[in-house]
Amino acid sequence: MAHTPSANQSAPDATRRSERSRRAIYDAALALVVEVGYPRTTIEGIAARAGVGKQTIYRWWGSKADVLLEAFLELGEQAARAAGHLSYAIPDTGDLAADLKQVLRATVDELRDPAFEAPSRALAAEGVVNEELGRRFVAQLLEPPLQLYVDRLRAAQQAGDVRADVDPRIALELFVSPLAQRWLQYTGPITYEYTDTLVDYALYGLAPR
Amino acid sequence: MAHTPSANQSAPDATRRSERSRRAIYDAALALVVEVGYPRTTIEGIAARAGVGKQTIYRWWGSKADVLLEAFLELGEQAARAAGHLSYAIPDTGDLAADLKQVLRATVDELRDPAFEAPSRALAAEGVVNEELGRRFVAQLLEPPLQLYVDRLRAAQQAGDVRADVDPRIALELFVSPLAQRWLQYTGPITYEYTDTLVDYALYGLAPR
Repeated sequence: MAHTPSANQSAPDATRRSERSRRAIYDAALALVVEVGYPRTTIEGIAARAGVGKQTIYRWWGSKADVLLEAFLELGEQAARAAGHLSYAIPDTGDLAADLKQVLRATVDELRDPAFEAPSRALAAEGVVNEELGRRFVAQLLEPPLQLYVDRLRAAQQAGDVRADVDPRIALELFVSPLAQRWLQYTGPITYEYTDTLVDYALYGLAPR
Repeated sequence: MAHTPSANQSAPDATRRSERSRRAIYDAALALVVEVGYPRTTIEGIAARAGVGKQTIYRWWGSKADVLLEAFLELGEQAARAAGHLSYAIPDTGDLAADLKQVLRATVDELRDPAFEAPSRALAAEGVVNEELGRRFVAQLLEPPLQLYVDRLRAAQQAGDVRADVDPRIALELFVSPLAQRWLQYTGPITYEYTDTLVDYALYGLAPR
């Protein structure tokens, strides 16, 4: 996950100082990308707002994209903690539908968290028109949690709850992507009832049984 | 769909002139939104690039959002014609899976059309951070074709090919949204094989039968 520059410091005071700087830099980067957009967010602007020197930022990160992606990883972890669950874990109670519904309900909570929403939208919007950033965004922020669905679906295949010929990486899109599109494009309301319905439709299909 | 200002003109010459102006305005609007982004695209800029007076634009449209949304409707229709099919029609051959696969394959062609891609991305990106534009974008550009899926799924319910208790407006998201997310966020390749697989998974479900 996010690297912790403070780990390289020896004295506790220096550790506390650099931890404070790191958080100030993350906060400044997230605030700026909301206020002026990604293209006009600069390392200089982040440094000024965070009250640190430009060199402090360059010592720890290579670019504004690196700062923002790490700020997002940290933000996602905070949102997950605020929503009362650990990120990067999908339960396996043996009831696949229930497990998926629980995780998607937690995602609904995160998507509705105002601290998460504005910077996430700013970065997602830039990713739509900036393929290089979009692909980094996906590889670092989106794909790791999606792989946990792959793992859970593979376990369900072992248990006989999902057909063996199903590709888990595509299968997860049947319930994850509709929620993502509603959030990205305002194509419909985001509720627990909605995500529960997606799971039921995806698992049991639209055709009669 | 797109209103045709030329229809209000009486003389054939005036009709041809205003049709030329209308197309020049659409082209200028689409080019500008790609080059400088939505926030910095202005009516003045569109008028200058199209070689028309500002008043010509204000006579036909109320805002730059109106110009762009109509330019997109026109572009979508051109892309549909170029892909060799009429837009706004989903076949009903009685084979639901085949019909859905055919329409989604045509959508794959449209999404890959370079003339369509850059301006579509620019408008979609703005919609992510600009809720008012996002909602207009959805209501005018996205929802009308989605309603055709609703109609086709309702016909399938009548024919007994889709469960009667399924909500068609949610059901269509199982195959439409994954394609949309892959396009918007570069989360995976967009191929006919992929969209065919989405239709099969959505109709028959992931759980064993």
